Amino acid sequence: MNDGGKKPPLGGLGVVGIIMGSKSDLPVMQDAADVLREFGVSYEITVVSAHRTPERMFNYAKEAQGRGLKVIIAGAGGAAHLPGMVASITTLPVIGVPVKSSNSIDGWDSILSILQMPNGIPVATVALNAAKNAGLLAVQILATADESLTVKMQAYKDELRRKVEESADSL
Amino acid sequence: MNDGGKKPPLGGLGVVGIIMGSKSDLPVMQDAADVLREFGVSYEITVVSAHRTPERMFNYAKEAQGRGLKVIIAGAGGAAHLPGMVASITTLPVIGVPVKSSNSIDGWDSILSILQMPNGIPVATVALNAAKNAGLLAVQILATADESLTVKMQAYKDELRRKVEESADSL
Amino acid sequence: MNDGGKKPPLGGLGVVGIIMGSKSDLPVMQDAADVLREFGVSYEITVVSAHRTPERMFNYAKEAQGRGLKVIIAGAGGAAHLPGMVASITTLPVIGVPVKSSNSIDGWDSILSILQMPNGIPVATVALNAAKNAGLLAVQILATADESLTVKMQAYKDELRRKVEESADSL
Amino acid sequence: MNDGGKKPPLGGLGVVGIIMGSKSDLPVMQDAADVLREFGVSYEITVVSAHRTPERMFNYAKEAQGRGLKVIIAGAGGAAHLPGMVASITTLPVIGVPVKSSNSIDGWDSILSILQMPNGIPVATVALNAAKNAGLLAVQILATADESLTVKMQAYKDELRRKVEESADSL
Amino acid sequence: MNDGGKKPPLGGLGVVGIIMGSKSDLPVMQDAADVLREFGVSYEITVVSAHRTPERMFNYAKEAQGRGLKVIIAGAGGAAHLPGMVASITTLPVIGVPVKSSNSIDGWDSILSILQMPNGIPVATVALNAAKNAGLLAVQILATADESLTVKMQAYKDELRRKVEESADSL
Amino acid sequence: MNDGGKKPPLGGLGVVGIIMGSKSDLPVMQDAADVLREFGVSYEITVVSAHRTPERMFNYAKEAQGRGLKVIIAGAGGAAHLPGMVASITTLPVIGVPVKSSNSIDGWDSILSILQMPNGIPVATVALNAAKNAGLLAVQILATADESLTVKMQAYKDELRRKVEESADSL
Amino acid sequence: MNDGGKKPPLGGLGVVGIIMGSKSDLPVMQDAADVLREFGVSYEITVVSAHRTPERMFNYAKEAQGRGLKVIIAGAGGAAHLPGMVASITTLPVIGVPVKSSNSIDGWDSILSILQMPNGIPVATVALNAAKNAGLLAVQILATADESLTVKMQAYKDELRRKVEESADSL
Amino acid sequence: MNDGGKKPPLGGLGVVGIIMGSKSDLPVMQDAADVLREFGVSYEITVVSAHRTPERMFNYAKEAQGRGLKVIIAGAGGAAHLPGMVASITTLPVIGVPVKSSNSIDGWDSILSILQMPNGIPVATVALNAAKNAGLLAVQILATADESLTVKMQAYKDELRRKVEESADSL
Repeated sequence: MNDGGKKPPLGGLGVVGIIMGSKSDLPVMQDAADVLREFGVSYEITVVSAHRTPERMFNYAKEAQGRGLKVIIAGAGGAAHLPGMVASITTLPVIGVPVKSSNSIDGWDSILSILQMPNGIPVATVALNAAKNAGLLAVQILATADESLTVKMQAYKDELRRKVEESADSL
Repeated sequence: MNDGGKKPPLGGLGVVGIIMGSKSDLPVMQDAADVLREFGVSYEITVVSAHRTPERMFNYAKEAQGRGLKVIIAGAGGAAHLPGMVASITTLPVIGVPVKSSNSIDGWDSILSILQMPNGIPVATVALNAAKNAGLLAVQILATADESLTVKMQAYKDELRRKVEESADSL
Repeated sequence: MNDGGKKPPLGGLGVVGIIMGSKSDLPVMQDAADVLREFGVSYEITVVSAHRTPERMFNYAKEAQGRGLKVIIAGAGGAAHLPGMVASITTLPVIGVPVKSSNSIDGWDSILSILQMPNGIPVATVALNAAKNAGLLAVQILATADESLTVKMQAYKDELRRKVEESADSL
Repeated sequence: MNDGGKKPPLGGLGVVGIIMGSKSDLPVMQDAADVLREFGVSYEITVVSAHRTPERMFNYAKEAQGRGLKVIIAGAGGAAHLPGMVASITTLPVIGVPVKSSNSIDGWDSILSILQMPNGIPVATVALNAAKNAGLLAVQILATADESLTVKMQAYKDELRRKVEESADSL
Repeated sequence: MNDGGKKPPLGGLGVVGIIMGSKSDLPVMQDAADVLREFGVSYEITVVSAHRTPERMFNYAKEAQGRGLKVIIAGAGGAAHLPGMVASITTLPVIGVPVKSSNSIDGWDSILSILQMPNGIPVATVALNAAKNAGLLAVQILATADESLTVKMQAYKDELRRKVEESADSL
Repeated sequence: MNDGGKKPPLGGLGVVGIIMGSKSDLPVMQDAADVLREFGVSYEITVVSAHRTPERMFNYAKEAQGRGLKVIIAGAGGAAHLPGMVASITTLPVIGVPVKSSNSIDGWDSILSILQMPNGIPVATVALNAAKNAGLLAVQILATADESLTVKMQAYKDELRRKVEESADSL
Repeated sequence: MNDGGKKPPLGGLGVVGIIMGSKSDLPVMQDAADVLREFGVSYEITVVSAHRTPERMFNYAKEAQGRGLKVIIAGAGGAAHLPGMVASITTLPVIGVPVKSSNSIDGWDSILSILQMPNGIPVATVALNAAKNAGLLAVQILATADESLTVKMQAYKDELRRKVEESADSL
Repeated sequence: MNDGGKKPPLGGLGVVGIIMGSKSDLPVMQDAADVLREFGVSYEITVVSAHRTPERMFNYAKEAQGRGLKVIIAGAGGAAHLPGMVASITTLPVIGVPVKSSNSIDGWDSILSILQMPNGIPVATVALNAAKNAGLLAVQILATADESLTVKMQAYKDELRRKVEESADSL
């Protein structure tokens, strides 16, 4: 299989691969990148379409682990096959972000076509458009072997708490 | 890419390829084969799982046209990626059959993940479990270049009419 | 049956008939025409309402094949009966485009009333508002007997791929 | 237009026409007939399929008023086009019964494809499988010009009330 | 029972009663009135809330027939009880208009709470916001005993047809 | 208003009124009665149909407070108007139990027609078929003025906890 | 358990506690407070997030009764766990307000995750965004032991009626 | 906080905690345990109800990491708060299994109340009843730091492929 010499533009340090089915998903998927940067986790981000670049998708998934990725975050909308197809090819954990894209029916198609994977091939699905949570889940996964990330995650949760308390005080 | 020496068991005469994501879809998908046989259209039928045999799926779709197939009928349930992924790889028309499989949520996931394909990659979707209609649609497609099939299709429709009239008479 | 002397305005060269239930569907359905023109496939486009012009619909479907049409693309919204009724009358393959019209409930009624045809009468349904995919599917159907269209379709798919790769490079 | 010599088997006395898309709808639709008999309203009942016998459907609707029918009750399931198509052809009031047939998605397709008619062509839709209510609605319609039916309808409602009161007493 | 001296402001000529659960439904429900005026059918129009004026609703329904009404059109949104409750009290045919009001969940609650009436108490439900169709259905009902209305209804349908043909010509 | 001499069979001690739209709802609604008996709260239980006995319903709701009732629990299915209509007439808190009756569409109609009440007229809705929770909620309401019920409710919750712990131990 | 010294800012007079999962729910939840003020019922209002401040939520629920609260109104959107979790901890009646927040799927997630509580732990759910009805329900609950509130509630209902009658007169 | 001396029955070797809201979820959740045993991953399994044992749930989540757990799998049905609440308390990755329990509305409530978590608190949701996939996802997460598990996972996927190929051969 050959994808015409195009290679996924991966730097050497990435441990999380963020992919999306269309560049129009970027405003949603950027949240995942921002969270990872906040936690000091290296990542790469690119466009990989299951439907328009199936070989690129195949190669990306096939080579992901060898290239040093630990977790893949895949976002797509409508009949969203990218997360599930990548999960079918790699052994890495794949986090799926259902995107409420312009061609989606209020997000139901995005959710069901990512979530309802058959036995044998899980996709860790997060809420509609919840790329931030996908980033946090990737951090939690990496934290199972990196205590410093656990510490940061606890601090993150403490900060969430503080903000709620502040907003309560301001009421 | 290599799928371990296994090759799709295609005979030389098939013009319609019927594939399904799991052997458990056979009771539904058999209807497509039965219709094709009834119209004298050659076909092959096999199991190709997008999620459990992604390379086999990829190869099947890639080689379909070269092997003489004219139309592909693909059935799957739940997060049903098979029809859409095959359509992304081949230029042949792909007919998708949403299967109400045991892991499906009343068929909604099957329907939406087959129907809601993005612009550029159509799947000709038929009703839930309607493999018979998938077979008929394949015949209609082949009939655009084969007048004898048009004649048979008209006869088929006449027979549908006759049966309704008979059931009306029996009321 | 008589439709008042009005005849569908078909030119001699059309091989794809594009019809829609209301002129208000034109902004959606124009995409089908644009794709066909891009592939050099002749077409006609007109308004045929199943509910407001049932005889015109009946005549259109009845005469379609004799007038040289090979494929019919029918778009409608709400309780969308046009694609299914045309399919009940002609032996040509009918592609249904569920339109998210102003009176539709988020498109669900359009989808279900086009997709869920009974056994015997298939409609090749595409995604909500996906008239472009309807046009592409019509090309794929015609390509089963026209190798030049297959070549063009492969080029179209290559172009889809190239655009994704470019957008990936620009990220 | 010609439906092959078959004519709807209408007796001279019928004022309500009950039609259904398939003989398999009879167990549901029989309730309409039973109610009409109970109220002494004459009726005919037959199978008319919009999809398998479009000309028969067309003729049935076209001739209904001339043959003395006052109201049409039409039941169908799945992509249920029969009620709406008949309503598009006749000026008679058409009552639609969404049938939860074996190929229906829990009845949602039946309901939406009957209920969501466009402006200009109403169908008086009753609840899923509620052929009894279709019969009662037909009686109410006829009662607008027949006081004896109003009297019977009031008695029917009184009987409903009495039965509830009895069941309350038995608790 | 006493509703405080307020009486429904009915003129002597009304044969169709149009009621709505809230004045905010008026922009939708006005379409029913406009159709009736177009057909020369007298009507009254007022606000009757099942939930905020239950006694007024009760009295309206109880007295409707005696005051000369032949058909009631009732529109409401959300948990829309007005059409069904009026139908439970009067023997007149009741046409229900599900309104997509601001508190409705995309209209689903309005539709289901009007359509899904139990056996014994039909409501003739039309499409979401389709007050125009409610008016037309009322005319069809009255036309069962008034041939002049049938003639007008046929003319109305002819006009619908002409408009589609014109829009087809203008394409 | 007169309901024919039938009076709701209320004993002198009832503080919770349990009503249901049909005797067929009794297997579901009995759970509410059982919970109330368990907590020593007096109740009455009867059938009151909004649609088949509107005057009985009206009278029941109108007289409820005067007869000493403190809370009303109303269960119904399909287009379930009983809880909302009773709430429109009485000032007592009304707890609505959506019943998944045989004519309901998987319970969605029951839920939406009870839950989605307009501003001004609340119904305290519990889960589908959750008459037990309706009973518990009635106890919680009465407990706001009866400390002994609070003590019993705490004991009930402790027992729930103990049962989970036992089932955990048995695993 | 310790929530860092932060205590819910409750004044001495509150009998209804209004809490919400996020300050962004305030525009919706303010309606509950406004109704309570209108009826002269004291209340407190604050932000308590089940997910971001679980200990604060736990403490709030645990201490609610001891602090003199009689009823809790809890609003939340998306996977809305606040009402149910508070109900699991306190014996007070908990009224749940499903909020159609920006991350909600048209409110369906908010409704189902509040309404569908298991047996043993009721939440009195009101309509989507219906915080006003939550406030009214709280008044009705308190009115079971406070006749002056019943009088006010009857006046409130009378005023609702008067407004409908006025809007009817203005039509 | 004190849960009455009951402690979660955790052995020393567990790295995955499987919890469920009710013992009736065991037939579904057992699949997760079976997969973990197959991969040689130690686990514990118990019942923890968010609603009936909130303190036990709180303690379980609070202590999970300290007790050596790396991943938590939580299954629940209906208004399923267990996965999200546990995720709100621990920093460990939480995998949610929506269970189609007897009180669930076809699983929709289970899915939405687990999936649609707000920003900040992810739950890795798998398909309805897909406890097997939850187990596999836990293995994939642990495999990010344990190459032997990656090898086993690749073997597992190879075995999935082989089974499909065998079923294809047997067709």
